[in-house]
Amino acid sequence: MAKQTFQVTTTHPGNGTRVEIQARHHRIIADEPPELGGTDSGANPVEILLGALGACQSVVAVVYAQKFGIRFERLQIELEGDIDLDGFFDKSNVRPGFSDIRYKFIFDSEEAPEKFQEFLNFVEQKCPVGDTLGNPVALRRAEIVVNAPAAV
Amino acid sequence: MAKQTFQVTTTHPGNGTRVEIQARHHRIIADEPPELGGTDSGANPVEILLGALGACQSVVAVVYAQKFGIRFERLQIELEGDIDLDGFFDKSNVRPGFSDIRYKFIFDSEEAPEKFQEFLNFVEQKCPVGDTLGNPVALRRAEIVVNAPAAV
Repeated sequence: MAKQTFQVTTTHPGNGTRVEIQARHHRIIADEPPELGGTDSGANPVEILLGALGACQSVVAVVYAQKFGIRFERLQIELEGDIDLDGFFDKSNVRPGFSDIRYKFIFDSEEAPEKFQEFLNFVEQKCPVGDTLGNPVALRRAEIVVNAPAAV
Repeated sequence: MAKQTFQVTTTHPGNGTRVEIQARHHRIIADEPPELGGTDSGANPVEILLGALGACQSVVAVVYAQKFGIRFERLQIELEGDIDLDGFFDKSNVRPGFSDIRYKFIFDSEEAPEKFQEFLNFVEQKCPVGDTLGNPVALRRAEIVVNAPAAV
């Protein structure tokens, strides 16, 4: 039984778009750039999502490189995705999320480029974040708690 | 035409599980904890994914609170998701990603708890990251580039 539960907590102060993400003892700041109404104190949530995908693909690549007889000295991944902001801003009923995400793998390696095709097919198949994005996930609101703020 | 393209680049040095995520001028470090083979210099990619969801839900909540006549002083979201690590470790053909993600909204607010149900239904519907996770995204490898490392 290899099922593992991962947990994080986010905290927002009730105004602005800056959010603290706490994952165990690690903290990440999310914010929006000025053109999306924020103060740009961190990457925004959809950028963080793309980054999670690239980081995950990188880890899977390094873990399985040996299985495919591949060595590389550096892996850069350029990721991008399109969002129609009319969805988020409720100007239309278009879906607010990414419909598609594209990425480019750039390896520093002495291997022949042909070796990477089958390797990357495998990497994509075993990538937890890629799998999560490529398939529909059941999102469930478990609970709503409303606490009265402490009296001043 | 409100379509906007978001871009990030990740960089991995060819060994270990530490990855740098660069989103415009913002940097996030991803790594794995020791029990997953890393040095724990940052949250891991699936934690970052959960964090992106909580941050996104928070931003959508603050942007649309006024529309629902809701004020809150703080929003904490506790998120969790289950992964069967046999998928990532190639011990079985089980999917390597999150099959389901659960979250709990904790508001500091003087509003009646009943007001939050309809509000959160709307927030969930308009959340770019939530929409991306709840629907299948077309992931596409645009290109593979293999550069010979510079001679020493």
